[in-house]
Amino acid sequence: MKHTILSFAILFSALCFSCKEAKQIQSDVIKPIEFPVPDRPAGVTDVVNLAVAPIDTVRVGFIGLGMRGPGAVKRFTHLEGVKIVALCDIHPERVEDCQKVLRKAGLPEAADYSGSADAWKKLCERDDIDLVYISTDWDTHVPMSLYAMEHGKHVACEVPIALTVEDCWKLVDMAEKTRLHCMMLENCCYDFFEMATLNMAQKGILGEIVHAEGAYIHDLRQLNFEDPARGGYNNWWRLEYNTHHTGNPYATHGLGPVAQALNLGRGDRMEYLVSLSSDQFGMTAYAEKKFGKDSEEAKREYKMGDMNTSVIRTAKGKSIMIQHDVTSPRPYNRKHALSGTKGYIEKYPRPGIALDPSDELSVNFENLSAHGFLPEKQFDEMMKNYEHPITREVGEMAKKVGGHGGMDFIMDYRLIYCLRNGLPLDINVYDGVEWSCLGELTEMSVKNNSAPVAFPDFTRGAWKKQQGYHHAYVK
Amino acid sequence: MKHTILSFAILFSALCFSCKEAKQIQSDVIKPIEFPVPDRPAGVTDVVNLAVAPIDTVRVGFIGLGMRGPGAVKRFTHLEGVKIVALCDIHPERVEDCQKVLRKAGLPEAADYSGSADAWKKLCERDDIDLVYISTDWDTHVPMSLYAMEHGKHVACEVPIALTVEDCWKLVDMAEKTRLHCMMLENCCYDFFEMATLNMAQKGILGEIVHAEGAYIHDLRQLNFEDPARGGYNNWWRLEYNTHHTGNPYATHGLGPVAQALNLGRGDRMEYLVSLSSDQFGMTAYAEKKFGKDSEEAKREYKMGDMNTSVIRTAKGKSIMIQHDVTSPRPYNRKHALSGTKGYIEKYPRPGIALDPSDELSVNFENLSAHGFLPEKQFDEMMKNYEHPITREVGEMAKKVGGHGGMDFIMDYRLIYCLRNGLPLDINVYDGVEWSCLGELTEMSVKNNSAPVAFPDFTRGAWKKQQGYHHAYVK
Repeated sequence: MKHTILSFAILFSALCFSCKEAKQIQSDVIKPIEFPVPDRPAGVTDVVNLAVAPIDTVRVGFIGLGMRGPGAVKRFTHLEGVKIVALCDIHPERVEDCQKVLRKAGLPEAADYSGSADAWKKLCERDDIDLVYISTDWDTHVPMSLYAMEHGKHVACEVPIALTVEDCWKLVDMAEKTRLHCMMLENCCYDFFEMATLNMAQKGILGEIVHAEGAYIHDLRQLNFEDPARGGYNNWWRLEYNTHHTGNPYATHGLGPVAQALNLGRGDRMEYLVSLSSDQFGMTAYAEKKFGKDSEEAKREYKMGDMNTSVIRTAKGKSIMIQHDVTSPRPYNRKHALSGTKGYIEKYPRPGIALDPSDELSVNFENLSAHGFLPEKQFDEMMKNYEHPITREVGEMAKKVGGHGGMDFIMDYRLIYCLRNGLPLDINVYDGVEWSCLGELTEMSVKNNSAPVAFPDFTRGAWKKQQGYHHAYVK
Repeated sequence: MKHTILSFAILFSALCFSCKEAKQIQSDVIKPIEFPVPDRPAGVTDVVNLAVAPIDTVRVGFIGLGMRGPGAVKRFTHLEGVKIVALCDIHPERVEDCQKVLRKAGLPEAADYSGSADAWKKLCERDDIDLVYISTDWDTHVPMSLYAMEHGKHVACEVPIALTVEDCWKLVDMAEKTRLHCMMLENCCYDFFEMATLNMAQKGILGEIVHAEGAYIHDLRQLNFEDPARGGYNNWWRLEYNTHHTGNPYATHGLGPVAQALNLGRGDRMEYLVSLSSDQFGMTAYAEKKFGKDSEEAKREYKMGDMNTSVIRTAKGKSIMIQHDVTSPRPYNRKHALSGTKGYIEKYPRPGIALDPSDELSVNFENLSAHGFLPEKQFDEMMKNYEHPITREVGEMAKKVGGHGGMDFIMDYRLIYCLRNGLPLDINVYDGVEWSCLGELTEMSVKNNSAPVAFPDFTRGAWKKQQGYHHAYVK
């Protein structure tokens, strides 16, 4: 079979392009690689806009208190209507550190789960928890989320919520079967500029949004190689992942905010992507310098290319460009660009807004060239006029509490607000898995000379039910 | 046959991905679409590093005096060792306008070719011209370049030099057969920041360059629709092209400068690309507003998507991202980003340099975070220390003469310098066609759901002859 496929590919190429008729055979276009969409079990329906009964006091258990967990615990001490019931980490001292945070906040100690690799199961099995909040390494997100839902708990889980398409389906099926919330904690959806520009997009200031860009460009070389005992990743899990995989495993920070602006899952969806990686040069160069040319680190083969660029096409003909580079000496950059028929915004290297000079909306901004960003004063006015209602309400407090400048707190605030008011969450299970599935889809594309790979429709058609993304509020 | 191909594609997908063994069949990877490489005629050899006898006074004929031509004529009046022998445009008044430029510069009038669609042939047939300088619309670049070479003239031609792979081969074959220069006039290779960063790259300041980006993002909506009589494109040729084609027809401004930094054609080459276009929204929105919803302009179907993103992989495992958008209200942007193992530069929206803080080279730049661009003072020092020898020599004069801030003059200066000194030109025929062939390759990819398309090796192996790009100088 292998030979047949190869021979056919060669034959196909030869047939198509060895003659001048190449343009006449375009009806035989090459199709994206497809993952099958399993049937939804009988009697089960989608969980788009899932709302459950209001929970007056949200009782929370935290799993994973290494890098991201302690900040979450601290933020939750500032939220109304929550009770921190249980804390879990494989390392007992991390649980103890978080108990100190509770004591300092004048709160009672939480139940302690620690010391074994499956201590988290006991936490999930408790009957006095509404929400399990997961901040562990990538590999454990899916088993923990599934187990929590199986035991009747809503789930909030760090990014990416899954690493494979198969695991994405498991999460969808479990959420649909149990009718429980399963929110991926994509904090970048809650940053101030992202929320303001989402507001602009929703108010039509940018016109029809045609193209968007996101990225995770963050020099993690030092952190990847750092000893876990000195603050590095537990068991060097990120270095391990980068050793064995390619593509873009960490797309959600760049993709999440632009996905909302493009109404993905609400009238539009991602149809296919192509993904291309450079080879890896940066990790080896760094390791040679830090550990010596003969070190194991310098000689190891890292599969993850330094730069991955993926391009996505949506059902409505929009395009999205997503990049990943954690091994180059570049300034931090999540891009966050939205290009529409009436305006353009980008966040990095510095936030800018450009409006169409031929548009009525730009009349207030005199002396603007079509090719220029708004000057500082007008930019500030726009940011003030279009500040998102959510950051307007809670932004000041978020800045005081902290967590990536406030966005982490706004995310937690919204999660608890929606649960307490019986509202659909901002990020549903479909969003989480669709943003996360780039991990496997991009790797598949890269390994096939960047061939197009189709997105499975995790909503099984339900993306057409609602037109336009919006946050839920109490009426 | 059509059905066989389609069935096979479906079967292939089903076979590969309906089971969990997807990862086990990666040896059957999908291959890029290939264009055949025709054999080189017997007795002909490549023209890499072609040098011809020094030409003391370069006698020039200009074809095309609409948008780009008059500026070229004016710049040539400032060059030593040239003689403007002939001027050609289909519109006689344009020739007359350029004669005025000559008179004003105290130069004799040139021979006048005008009034018919093939007046340019007579210019090419003269026996007192060394160089034909072509600034016409895209469609005429190839026939004019071929005819000029056939009649023993060196060629300098505006971008893109060709629109199809077939035409690219015609140019290569003609240049190899006649052993004449055929330089594409990629002026962006000669801008000050591009040249300084090329110098940095060649001196190793950025380490191994792993990824590069270029773009042509320029709001041409008004110009596309403008009446030719009032300064629009002759016969609305650009609007026509955008009506009938998709992909990226105008990649060379973004690609040229980064191709030089990546040593393409000199030890590395582009192997394949994938290309994805959004649908078109901007032209219709603009036309509806300007001409009314019922206008022909508003109702016409434009095939060219607003945003095209193409990603290229090179033989050495580097990646290049190239974009094209001429129909959105975005600030002008050619990107020009170079990302290496030791440093990163980008030109837009404002020039920035970031260096690896763990690198000895950054010791001079204290207090730098790995995630920050150099502060203004250090940036200015870098730009001064690494100013390219060519702009150092001729930059001041170039700024006075003008032409996109000076880069057009530097380009002309180098062309004439090399011809007068019998040196290889900075941009050879292979560079021109390889950068230009993105037009057809990207369109092919877009029409095949962004499937990968292989670059024909226009050098037929000669890209391995020289390691590293350099400008030629008199010793």
